[in-house]
Amino acid sequence: MPTGLPAVNSSVASDDEGWVWAQIKAEARRDAESEPALASYLYSTILSHSSLERSLSFHLGNKLCSSTLLSTLLYDLFLNAFSSDPSLRSAAVADLRAARERDPACVSYSHCLLNYKGFLACQAHRVAHLLWRQSRRPLALALHSRIADVFAVDIHPAARIGKGILFDHATGVVVGETAVIGNNVSILHHVTLGGTGKAGGDRHPKIGDGVLIGAGATILGNIKIGEGAKVGAGSVVLIDVPPRTTAVGNPARLVGGKEKPSKHEDVPGESMDHTSFISEWSDYII
Amino acid sequence: MPTGLPAVNSSVASDDEGWVWAQIKAEARRDAESEPALASYLYSTILSHSSLERSLSFHLGNKLCSSTLLSTLLYDLFLNAFSSDPSLRSAAVADLRAARERDPACVSYSHCLLNYKGFLACQAHRVAHLLWRQSRRPLALALHSRIADVFAVDIHPAARIGKGILFDHATGVVVGETAVIGNNVSILHHVTLGGTGKAGGDRHPKIGDGVLIGAGATILGNIKIGEGAKVGAGSVVLIDVPPRTTAVGNPARLVGGKEKPSKHEDVPGESMDHTSFISEWSDYII
Amino acid sequence: MPTGLPAVNSSVASDDEGWVWAQIKAEARRDAESEPALASYLYSTILSHSSLERSLSFHLGNKLCSSTLLSTLLYDLFLNAFSSDPSLRSAAVADLRAARERDPACVSYSHCLLNYKGFLACQAHRVAHLLWRQSRRPLALALHSRIADVFAVDIHPAARIGKGILFDHATGVVVGETAVIGNNVSILHHVTLGGTGKAGGDRHPKIGDGVLIGAGATILGNIKIGEGAKVGAGSVVLIDVPPRTTAVGNPARLVGGKEKPSKHEDVPGESMDHTSFISEWSDYII
Amino acid sequence: MPTGLPAVNSSVASDDEGWVWAQIKAEARRDAESEPALASYLYSTILSHSSLERSLSFHLGNKLCSSTLLSTLLYDLFLNAFSSDPSLRSAAVADLRAARERDPACVSYSHCLLNYKGFLACQAHRVAHLLWRQSRRPLALALHSRIADVFAVDIHPAARIGKGILFDHATGVVVGETAVIGNNVSILHHVTLGGTGKAGGDRHPKIGDGVLIGAGATILGNIKIGEGAKVGAGSVVLIDVPPRTTAVGNPARLVGGKEKPSKHEDVPGESMDHTSFISEWSDYII
Amino acid sequence: MPTGLPAVNSSVASDDEGWVWAQIKAEARRDAESEPALASYLYSTILSHSSLERSLSFHLGNKLCSSTLLSTLLYDLFLNAFSSDPSLRSAAVADLRAARERDPACVSYSHCLLNYKGFLACQAHRVAHLLWRQSRRPLALALHSRIADVFAVDIHPAARIGKGILFDHATGVVVGETAVIGNNVSILHHVTLGGTGKAGGDRHPKIGDGVLIGAGATILGNIKIGEGAKVGAGSVVLIDVPPRTTAVGNPARLVGGKEKPSKHEDVPGESMDHTSFISEWSDYII
Amino acid sequence: MPTGLPAVNSSVASDDEGWVWAQIKAEARRDAESEPALASYLYSTILSHSSLERSLSFHLGNKLCSSTLLSTLLYDLFLNAFSSDPSLRSAAVADLRAARERDPACVSYSHCLLNYKGFLACQAHRVAHLLWRQSRRPLALALHSRIADVFAVDIHPAARIGKGILFDHATGVVVGETAVIGNNVSILHHVTLGGTGKAGGDRHPKIGDGVLIGAGATILGNIKIGEGAKVGAGSVVLIDVPPRTTAVGNPARLVGGKEKPSKHEDVPGESMDHTSFISEWSDYII
Repeated sequence: MPTGLPAVNSSVASDDEGWVWAQIKAEARRDAESEPALASYLYSTILSHSSLERSLSFHLGNKLCSSTLLSTLLYDLFLNAFSSDPSLRSAAVADLRAARERDPACVSYSHCLLNYKGFLACQAHRVAHLLWRQSRRPLALALHSRIADVFAVDIHPAARIGKGILFDHATGVVVGETAVIGNNVSILHHVTLGGTGKAGGDRHPKIGDGVLIGAGATILGNIKIGEGAKVGAGSVVLIDVPPRTTAVGNPARLVGGKEKPSKHEDVPGESMDHTSFISEWSDYII
Repeated sequence: MPTGLPAVNSSVASDDEGWVWAQIKAEARRDAESEPALASYLYSTILSHSSLERSLSFHLGNKLCSSTLLSTLLYDLFLNAFSSDPSLRSAAVADLRAARERDPACVSYSHCLLNYKGFLACQAHRVAHLLWRQSRRPLALALHSRIADVFAVDIHPAARIGKGILFDHATGVVVGETAVIGNNVSILHHVTLGGTGKAGGDRHPKIGDGVLIGAGATILGNIKIGEGAKVGAGSVVLIDVPPRTTAVGNPARLVGGKEKPSKHEDVPGESMDHTSFISEWSDYII
Repeated sequence: MPTGLPAVNSSVASDDEGWVWAQIKAEARRDAESEPALASYLYSTILSHSSLERSLSFHLGNKLCSSTLLSTLLYDLFLNAFSSDPSLRSAAVADLRAARERDPACVSYSHCLLNYKGFLACQAHRVAHLLWRQSRRPLALALHSRIADVFAVDIHPAARIGKGILFDHATGVVVGETAVIGNNVSILHHVTLGGTGKAGGDRHPKIGDGVLIGAGATILGNIKIGEGAKVGAGSVVLIDVPPRTTAVGNPARLVGGKEKPSKHEDVPGESMDHTSFISEWSDYII
Repeated sequence: MPTGLPAVNSSVASDDEGWVWAQIKAEARRDAESEPALASYLYSTILSHSSLERSLSFHLGNKLCSSTLLSTLLYDLFLNAFSSDPSLRSAAVADLRAARERDPACVSYSHCLLNYKGFLACQAHRVAHLLWRQSRRPLALALHSRIADVFAVDIHPAARIGKGILFDHATGVVVGETAVIGNNVSILHHVTLGGTGKAGGDRHPKIGDGVLIGAGATILGNIKIGEGAKVGAGSVVLIDVPPRTTAVGNPARLVGGKEKPSKHEDVPGESMDHTSFISEWSDYII
Repeated sequence: MPTGLPAVNSSVASDDEGWVWAQIKAEARRDAESEPALASYLYSTILSHSSLERSLSFHLGNKLCSSTLLSTLLYDLFLNAFSSDPSLRSAAVADLRAARERDPACVSYSHCLLNYKGFLACQAHRVAHLLWRQSRRPLALALHSRIADVFAVDIHPAARIGKGILFDHATGVVVGETAVIGNNVSILHHVTLGGTGKAGGDRHPKIGDGVLIGAGATILGNIKIGEGAKVGAGSVVLIDVPPRTTAVGNPARLVGGKEKPSKHEDVPGESMDHTSFISEWSDYII
Repeated sequence: MPTGLPAVNSSVASDDEGWVWAQIKAEARRDAESEPALASYLYSTILSHSSLERSLSFHLGNKLCSSTLLSTLLYDLFLNAFSSDPSLRSAAVADLRAARERDPACVSYSHCLLNYKGFLACQAHRVAHLLWRQSRRPLALALHSRIADVFAVDIHPAARIGKGILFDHATGVVVGETAVIGNNVSILHHVTLGGTGKAGGDRHPKIGDGVLIGAGATILGNIKIGEGAKVGAGSVVLIDVPPRTTAVGNPARLVGGKEKPSKHEDVPGESMDHTSFISEWSDYII
């Protein structure tokens, strides 16, 4: 964990959220001073705002707007959502922490806030999901469409997503209507949580807490990926994966086999260990 | 099939097309009434237009424009294409039906018309393809580039595509220059119909009617995917797949084996059954 | 090689670069004459400019701008970069040649310059990389973010990339912070050069000269893909691949086996031969 | 007075304001139904908003924004101003009434709200004036500049303006820093309330209640235009004009002469009678 | 008259219109060749279009659009108007000729078409007037508002305007609802054809054929400016001006006096002679 | 003169120019700190630039751009002009000083640089004039048109304008093709320097050094306004005005009469004294 960070599971959430926002402003101020060419951008997106919610609403409104869905309309929509549901802010802070702690390429909170398409897509999704739950579905779907166009991240507004999520790189992620994602999950780019046919109903994967899903993995159907499980990059998973086990390959096999899958102890969604299972994967080199 | 829909293969196409357009307007009117924040968008994209072609031309012109390719220019281009080639409209209607009938997440025709990047990319491609056939290649390629930037869907303007196509989710789809796609095909996101080298000529896959291609499948070379065949998610296919058979895996194997591939009866491009072949895939769990 | 092209490895680089720029202008002039609807675009992007650098700076500035990062700011940034580091221009010319020579769908240099998102993303990356090396990291990361949004190509600004690179189709490419790509490499879409965990340090692949990486391949960790090697489409590679050998499958195996991998002679990054190894891949059809 | 209007000086301001907003929505709804091409505009500017303040803030934000002063920033600014100072709303309503009652070309309240540049410039000025009084002068002046560019109406943010103001046509109006305008004043286009030199201090005209100033009149210096006075079109006024008298000509003379200026009884700022003084102007035709 | 121009009152209007359009394209082609920086602009506005109507519709659509009234909507509106009423085209051609022949600063037809705000405002007004006559008043007034914002030219959509009109410089022109302007009239900037009070009905000036109105003249009330009359710059006119006479001053007097106004012979709206009456204006120098 | 300003006619121009630019940056920095909502604007327009020329080029490029004349093109044009002709910069500095010293409402140099439409229109005109002298007339006229649209200031690109010019308020200013304006001239809004007919050739006023022209004055024909002369607001001037005399009225008379015009001593273009001549204007009040 980077030096000087407070504990993640702070019991005083609002202090923690204030701390993160203060960090973001300090980072942006430092960057604006060192790089005048970027100062205008940093002031408009961060430094002119009085709260993380306003900054995010402004940034998302300007990123997601189009000639037929104006930035002012979207800005309003985001502001209203953030003020009506405080859990959106705490989820955003948890996601910022997730990126900062798990992704070594994430150099600062403001870096994530401004530049991570996975982070931005996820926050916009949370607002679309709120609209969906409020039965404002045409608006939720219009927002969904803008997120899919702008970030190439396609999360159905009905999908339920926990906190502390890292969508790393994020391009090409697809999450279906009845998918559920737990807390502290890390999902790489090109990952699909898809359905299995044209029948409606509950048809998408359920991802447990602390799961890590590698780049390009395709997980299909109403199956369970147990808590703390890992899915290897490029895997195609069509069956349940037990907790704290690893599934790899196309079609995915459990490392150690179905009968005695080898367990790992940590929380891969947080440790981001993609490849330590290689030695156990006996036939890797033919 | 959702209640109240007329038969798909209506012999009176124009009545059918009119019916779909009437549905779209009715849906948009209902949504505008229930959601004032979205009404402006629905009026500009649908309710102010006198026909599906004009609505689509407006929507695509505004989606695909850039600071150097103005919306008015693109709008004109689309309007002219739709009025010179009525088959573009009937193909659009067939694609709308395909989404509505095969994708349980598609809640209405207007939802598809406005929000499905696969649908919109496909309609824009049809216009690029018309330009290509008219030997207006630089314009076709400029349009191709805009589609690839805006929707992350990269279909070469020379590629020939049938009707009743569902590009579901669509992000990352790549279809090469000499590819051919039949009617009633369903293609998930991240699917590649690619070439095999730097030699020119006929070098991309030929996809038969009714085929279903799962997410992330890569099909390379001038090979045939026979009618009614299925290609599993994440498969890498380098050889012909016979009609009504299933190919899965990397590299793809035919379910049942090359000598006696097990046949299935339905039209997977329409049934969208991705996973029922699992039980036949004997070594799925090791 | 198309008729009339001068030798690739011209010892007089500046003549060669001038020749390519002259070709681009001639192509654009021809296209503007034959297609008035596109003439405005061709004049603004190519014909009004006095050099390739100015044309590229204008085009990238207009493509990558947003409401909070103005085109004038980006244009300035690109112009300054090109004038301070002439190697950016020669790399751009080498990349244009790579597309023209290796991709049969590339009909002209101007086609690549205007329309290839892989080409454009790569040139913008080179500028982001220059900023990174100058310790202007917040600006480099902001540019990185715009490239990832607009082109769905996510190359960390610290990644080092050689010349003569073809990112074909390019959507979904992810290249991590400590990755290195040699010269004359061809990389298809959806390719990942990724890391292996949350530890920092040197953790991404090193790709040798002349390598060809097929669509959807995922290469993870600080491993070496030797010069002239091939990685098959959809492969997941977690170990070194020796020079002039081929890795295929998920997990990737060396064709011929680890002990006696069969060598090929040519430079696949240039020949773009994706599939000739099929006959050697003995268990391809089960 | 148009049939069915409630009394102007309603003692219950909030009811009155609610009535005007209800009228505006009813008008917009009627127009949206009769003119689908305009419906999108009417929904985005009026029908999607829950209050006059939000509608005005949205409309002004979109009218006054530029590539360096974003609509979201201005929208926020206007919303905050309207919510912090309710007199802005009542002044807007009084101005809407002024246009509706005095200008026969004003067909509806919504017509004024959407289309009258004088009305819009005046409301934006009120916000700039609020900022000025809050010592946020650089922001007030930036807003002033946008109003002057977009509407060609140049009112210094320090100028104090009453309620029930009609700036008719408005193009070219210039109002200096220390000018004061009373209530129920009507000012035509090209009117200048200017200073007299480079000395600072109180140097601009003071316009009494109920004054009517004709097109192109130029009023210079710290002089008083008494209540209910009229200034003829094209007049150049450099001295005080007594209450309920008329000044015409260049240089302006009082009708009836300085010693016994002929009085008129009504409130010309409300009656808008520009020309009934002709018969008294003895030398009009030479 | 510039050498080589055909007669103005050509009896074969359509040939004449074709000739003007051909001139415009030839001029634009010449300018595009000599000035590459402008070529993109010239192609998009003129050279890519097949007719004057399409060129004008495109140019006006892009000039008058806003974030809430999209260019595609306006373009459509203009195209439909031009195709439904061919007199709009012939009026535009007559106005182009008027500028070319009367304004020595008008160097070419394309100069007027692209750059003259008076010309552009007048053509857009004609379309607003057509909408007004079709009882599409809210749309007519919205267009009126855009013209007033963008060009600072405020012509009520109900005002009737003849052909061969030159609005020279045009900024600040105001033309009221019941004003009528004849043919071959020239009107300088800041001219007001205004009303006289808040009463409705026919209350604005009627301007005869061939009239010339100097800069800053204010003409108020339902009065007649007879054919071939002149109104001096800065005049304020409140009474009828007989044909072929000159009114000057504030208040305006007839040159030669009311009883025996001196007549002039030519058509000042075409000769543009602003000042030859000076010698007759006896008291001009005191 | 405001405290602490160095002498205007500094013999070391470049030091002076550097001083003004340093002031501008200091002002902007102070304002950015006190008003975060404006900081983004101040950084993008001033604080991110290394010189006054770059700041002005950026600001003008963004102000004058349109959908068919892109900001990048205009920015380039301005940058090239400023670097090819250093007198443009010194003229801009002289104009900034003129506003700061003569206009009591001008609170800072940056206020003028950012917000004064007269200042901005004048600097853009100087570039248009440079293009005109380089025989790049179509481009000069296109720029002229944008200035007239955006600022409602219409200065023909051939007009010759000195240094130290204040166009105060500026809306509606019209300056004809053969007009000449000397140094240290102050011109209020709605001023016309116009021609007298449709004949070409030298036909516009020549304004001497140090002249002050009041709001709404109309000066027509190839006449001379002698150095240090004053023209009263609303005057219509058709004859020469001798040096250091005052012309007022419509038609304009010389104060003191033609034979013995009363002289004033100062430089009214700098003192901005509009009205001290009133006492001499004997018949002002009838």
